[in-house]
Amino acid sequence: MTDTNPSSLTHFDPKGDAHMVDIGGKPQTHRKAIAGGRIQMKQSTLDLIQNAQAAKGDVLGVARVAGIMAAKRTSDLIPLCHPIMLSRVAVEFEIVTATATSGPAVQCLAIAETTGGTGVEMEALTAVQITLLTIYDMCKAVDKGMVMTDVKLLEKHGGKSGTYLAAP
Amino acid sequence: MTDTNPSSLTHFDPKGDAHMVDIGGKPQTHRKAIAGGRIQMKQSTLDLIQNAQAAKGDVLGVARVAGIMAAKRTSDLIPLCHPIMLSRVAVEFEIVTATATSGPAVQCLAIAETTGGTGVEMEALTAVQITLLTIYDMCKAVDKGMVMTDVKLLEKHGGKSGTYLAAP
Amino acid sequence: MTDTNPSSLTHFDPKGDAHMVDIGGKPQTHRKAIAGGRIQMKQSTLDLIQNAQAAKGDVLGVARVAGIMAAKRTSDLIPLCHPIMLSRVAVEFEIVTATATSGPAVQCLAIAETTGGTGVEMEALTAVQITLLTIYDMCKAVDKGMVMTDVKLLEKHGGKSGTYLAAP
Amino acid sequence: MTDTNPSSLTHFDPKGDAHMVDIGGKPQTHRKAIAGGRIQMKQSTLDLIQNAQAAKGDVLGVARVAGIMAAKRTSDLIPLCHPIMLSRVAVEFEIVTATATSGPAVQCLAIAETTGGTGVEMEALTAVQITLLTIYDMCKAVDKGMVMTDVKLLEKHGGKSGTYLAAP
Amino acid sequence: MTDTNPSSLTHFDPKGDAHMVDIGGKPQTHRKAIAGGRIQMKQSTLDLIQNAQAAKGDVLGVARVAGIMAAKRTSDLIPLCHPIMLSRVAVEFEIVTATATSGPAVQCLAIAETTGGTGVEMEALTAVQITLLTIYDMCKAVDKGMVMTDVKLLEKHGGKSGTYLAAP
Amino acid sequence: MTDTNPSSLTHFDPKGDAHMVDIGGKPQTHRKAIAGGRIQMKQSTLDLIQNAQAAKGDVLGVARVAGIMAAKRTSDLIPLCHPIMLSRVAVEFEIVTATATSGPAVQCLAIAETTGGTGVEMEALTAVQITLLTIYDMCKAVDKGMVMTDVKLLEKHGGKSGTYLAAP
Repeated sequence: MTDTNPSSLTHFDPKGDAHMVDIGGKPQTHRKAIAGGRIQMKQSTLDLIQNAQAAKGDVLGVARVAGIMAAKRTSDLIPLCHPIMLSRVAVEFEIVTATATSGPAVQCLAIAETTGGTGVEMEALTAVQITLLTIYDMCKAVDKGMVMTDVKLLEKHGGKSGTYLAAP
Repeated sequence: MTDTNPSSLTHFDPKGDAHMVDIGGKPQTHRKAIAGGRIQMKQSTLDLIQNAQAAKGDVLGVARVAGIMAAKRTSDLIPLCHPIMLSRVAVEFEIVTATATSGPAVQCLAIAETTGGTGVEMEALTAVQITLLTIYDMCKAVDKGMVMTDVKLLEKHGGKSGTYLAAP
Repeated sequence: MTDTNPSSLTHFDPKGDAHMVDIGGKPQTHRKAIAGGRIQMKQSTLDLIQNAQAAKGDVLGVARVAGIMAAKRTSDLIPLCHPIMLSRVAVEFEIVTATATSGPAVQCLAIAETTGGTGVEMEALTAVQITLLTIYDMCKAVDKGMVMTDVKLLEKHGGKSGTYLAAP
Repeated sequence: MTDTNPSSLTHFDPKGDAHMVDIGGKPQTHRKAIAGGRIQMKQSTLDLIQNAQAAKGDVLGVARVAGIMAAKRTSDLIPLCHPIMLSRVAVEFEIVTATATSGPAVQCLAIAETTGGTGVEMEALTAVQITLLTIYDMCKAVDKGMVMTDVKLLEKHGGKSGTYLAAP
Repeated sequence: MTDTNPSSLTHFDPKGDAHMVDIGGKPQTHRKAIAGGRIQMKQSTLDLIQNAQAAKGDVLGVARVAGIMAAKRTSDLIPLCHPIMLSRVAVEFEIVTATATSGPAVQCLAIAETTGGTGVEMEALTAVQITLLTIYDMCKAVDKGMVMTDVKLLEKHGGKSGTYLAAP
Repeated sequence: MTDTNPSSLTHFDPKGDAHMVDIGGKPQTHRKAIAGGRIQMKQSTLDLIQNAQAAKGDVLGVARVAGIMAAKRTSDLIPLCHPIMLSRVAVEFEIVTATATSGPAVQCLAIAETTGGTGVEMEALTAVQITLLTIYDMCKAVDKGMVMTDVKLLEKHGGKSGTYLAAP
């Protein structure tokens, strides 16, 4: 049976009004989240990024800084997110070569950690989204058709709901 | 022949250092961009959102506000984006029912306009990303496996490069 | 006897210079504040807002999101406010019908909570002010004469000074 | 006859969804707005502020800076406000002595100007609200019962709707 | 022997990628930092500032507010800085008269404190820099040649590395 | 004769109150400013930075991004600065080897441009300051004694006051 009662969306109170839910009673535990996502592009664009890495013009370095800074501003961007004292943020990249079913891409992974009363999934996901957007911005002069895709939570640890691992 | 010269990435100067490129000499013209993207979810989550719309707990209304506000902060988030005086931002939704090849989803469309020396693609894309992230945030208590996907520029009008339409 | 010694304003040091006072030694206790305020308007404007609620065009829903987001930015707006990890923010509305002594209005109530070394009065008051301003913004095309009034602290709990209740 | 059609609220599109309205076609004209408001307090609190002005501990000086800075962030706080290039902001104070019908207070006036496609009422009103909030913050240790009241638009010049003067 | 291994820069991971380092395991201790810096100017500019203090036009009062507010935004400005719950910020000035070896100047001192897992040097230094920049801004109409100089950490207390005192 | 009339500080009105001065009547002209500054450090720290550039761990690349982003936030940080639509920002570095009179250092140069009614000196200076602060942050684990110094306006073009060149 499917639960279709809107009140199961905890960001709304029983009257259906949005609120920032009370986390005051939650224990302060160590929290960690890992999110991932991908930006697909032309092979020539990927070549440009890789050449830039090797030589000059560090697209991924700039995008990483943008992603880390955005993670710190998550509660400023997402209306019902609690402010969080992030204790760690990291952004990593992997170059994805074209396969039979998917094109060339840069895969981005963001890791966020804190000790607090609420999770850091949104911080990790925000880091991924702004990192991918920054790559788009820096390469759009040569490739407007890039697609940001498959952005999702990969892992979550800590808190009452415990560990979550995305289905592979 | 593929152009793999990093200097064709205009966000880097000839030495390969990142900079915010000079748009001082560009004419002030009307610019418009439309971006789109999708968040895939369980059918029960989509039902919750739709019931909430009909009754109480307006997930999409809150997400729309977040997306519009984020568009205005694009140059604050994306390192080499120019500040822009947006003259219009709108965010629209479409409920996507499951098909043979793809699951149930909310499709989001963002439109940005300005009159200025540079385009508004990044503003439209940022609005889409933060709108999708806000939907994720509000529904994650019931569905951590949601996936944000297929975020891309759909249309672009104005400026030296003229009209761009994404391949269908 | 009235205390007119400026040094009783704790936001100034003995020399009279503004500073962000030291709360390092204060115990971390649960804090809660409730603030209220009202925006007076023409009956026809209030009708518009109520019709919008019932049908489409959710003025109060947008204003609530603005108020919650503003509460999180209080220390960024009020120079000598300490940063605070808000654990809860809620904004509620009541439609006030015209009486012999006062006109039609929307009454707004904001509740803020945290566990920390300083109170959350400013967060609750800021939420009320920005919520009322957002209502003004959305209705000003039809009613420029709206008045925001009677914004005050209603209740405060926790901390050394204990409970405060506004005189009725 | 009263217009109760929600679509007369221009911040909603015909479907009733909030948007940042298109001002792209509006002429760039000189715009000016003056807003006012008052914070009522105990006579002893007003004495403290006045003594502070004369000697040390400049409450109103700090509040003025906060109000001017807040005016520049209006579009960041009010969801559907357009970004505006303010060309002038000023905040003025008047000490209001107690009368038969109203208590002692500080009256605040904010003036905002720009040349652009939309008005600056929200900037002037935001400056007043944050200025009053800052006075509250700096004096709350001695007077939690202060009330911010009578915040409204006093004058508006420029734009299609022309001059607006509040009823006296 | 000089350590020239880039990995001794802790803001980079072993691969050389920037990250916000993990402070999750660090104990929450009391931290304090004092930073100083100076803005050199013409004697006539210094006279203006001092006359303004005595009479009207409080340059240093406005600059102090800017410095305190900037300290709270340090983690928003410096990419790899952790968000910190500042428990105290103060900014002090000293008028420096011309000597044989250095010209007239305003010396600025900023003190920051917190209880947490990382130090507050950056908060104190940021307060100094933005305070000096604000003095520059307010006096640049009469003296464009002002120089901000000798900005450094003076003292640091708390944390694993313990007390640091700048060489005199 | 020295002008010591505080009213010659244009950021204060005739009463001595701070305000954001009216630039509404000023012509929109092309403006450019170049600012410079230096961070002095131990030779071993400079070696680390240079090795990092050559190999991994790009201190200057991260600092450049921070400086460019800060330039865009100048009016948010400096109380009486006007919002400006920057059309270009660039940050450049030069490695300074030790001489008889000064130690090893990184010299930073920031260039800002716009077309508007007010200059961009503050934007260029803010970029320099935040760039230097970011270098300090990234290297402070190995060298707390670094000194940021000699930050000043080097060139200014456009506007009523015309060209300014710093004395060599």
